[in-house]
Amino acid sequence: MTDAVQYITDLEAIRSLTQRYARAVDTRDIDTVGTLFHPEAQVEGVRGTAAIGPYLDGMRNASAVFAGSMHVLGDPLVTFTAGADEASTDTYAVVYQLREPDAPEGDLTLGMRYFDQLVRHDGNWVIAHRRTATIWMRGALPG
Amino acid sequence: MTDAVQYITDLEAIRSLTQRYARAVDTRDIDTVGTLFHPEAQVEGVRGTAAIGPYLDGMRNASAVFAGSMHVLGDPLVTFTAGADEASTDTYAVVYQLREPDAPEGDLTLGMRYFDQLVRHDGNWVIAHRRTATIWMRGALPG
Amino acid sequence: MTDAVQYITDLEAIRSLTQRYARAVDTRDIDTVGTLFHPEAQVEGVRGTAAIGPYLDGMRNASAVFAGSMHVLGDPLVTFTAGADEASTDTYAVVYQLREPDAPEGDLTLGMRYFDQLVRHDGNWVIAHRRTATIWMRGALPG
Repeated sequence: MTDAVQYITDLEAIRSLTQRYARAVDTRDIDTVGTLFHPEAQVEGVRGTAAIGPYLDGMRNASAVFAGSMHVLGDPLVTFTAGADEASTDTYAVVYQLREPDAPEGDLTLGMRYFDQLVRHDGNWVIAHRRTATIWMRGALPG
Repeated sequence: MTDAVQYITDLEAIRSLTQRYARAVDTRDIDTVGTLFHPEAQVEGVRGTAAIGPYLDGMRNASAVFAGSMHVLGDPLVTFTAGADEASTDTYAVVYQLREPDAPEGDLTLGMRYFDQLVRHDGNWVIAHRRTATIWMRGALPG
Repeated sequence: MTDAVQYITDLEAIRSLTQRYARAVDTRDIDTVGTLFHPEAQVEGVRGTAAIGPYLDGMRNASAVFAGSMHVLGDPLVTFTAGADEASTDTYAVVYQLREPDAPEGDLTLGMRYFDQLVRHDGNWVIAHRRTATIWMRGALPG
């Protein structure tokens, strides 16, 4: 593979990572979510920092709270130097946490920002560290 | 053209296809929508599968129902091997079907997912098969 | 740098420009917004055309009107020929102009489209001309 083809292939893999995250979490395929993170990944959110194992457990429990979800992600802002084994992405997301259409509380909608540190691990790009920031939130939190 | 430049050029063409679709449908330029599909393309939606000709006719008729639309697409998840003549994209969209600002029903907003099979045809990338899935819908359907 | 690597590097820089714009304007870092435009850039909006200097001054004043903002941008539709010193992007955006969560007017949300002419300037890609179009607007304008 030429350097240029490797560069493109890496960028496509990096760019697709958060998109694959969205699809896995929205179809509640938490095992697939796990494959997108490094085994020792850390996820940092409003309630502190969790290792990936407990974080995935939390996702499994949380998925029953809403009827569905859709993580609509903008184009990531990618920082990557050709040939490097590390990269970072900064991704805007609108997260629709969906209740049943006739639920009186309506949906919960969040404006989020994901700051991901990615590494090449066993030949694949994975998320080694994610920090999430909630920019705004509209609608009723789960009671 | 080197292999790498061809690879980039193909990826850019693939990536732009759904964006061009959004702009054509939102400006109600249905003839341009037609150029983005293979002449024998099939579109599969909630009401079954249609050939591209009847599908475009349906779009022409439907465009009078709403005052306007905006198809806001996330970054597509692209599956493409350098040099191949086929590709697929999986694209999240929030579709705003707009009524007049003072219409009592408000707007209809949909969370959609487009699964497109693309082929190289006469030197251009076109959509050979599209499957659409509606993830959520909020607001009043046309009466 | 090979032609292919230069091509990729240019595309990534072009693609990132509107994303960097969104982050700078949403964090109210108007000085950084200024670095993304050519010193003689023009911005064309509903109220006419402004040079970049007065335009940035307007942004500084406007930022006090809302409690915050989020400019969620779709994938840009990029027009660029490898090696050229000019490019253009056409970007869909949903702009959330946020009031305090308990404000009775709620938020102002806009569907926008940015038509940017980019040029290579001192080794960087910058916006030489931006035309903005508002496709839709929902919520209360600042009184």
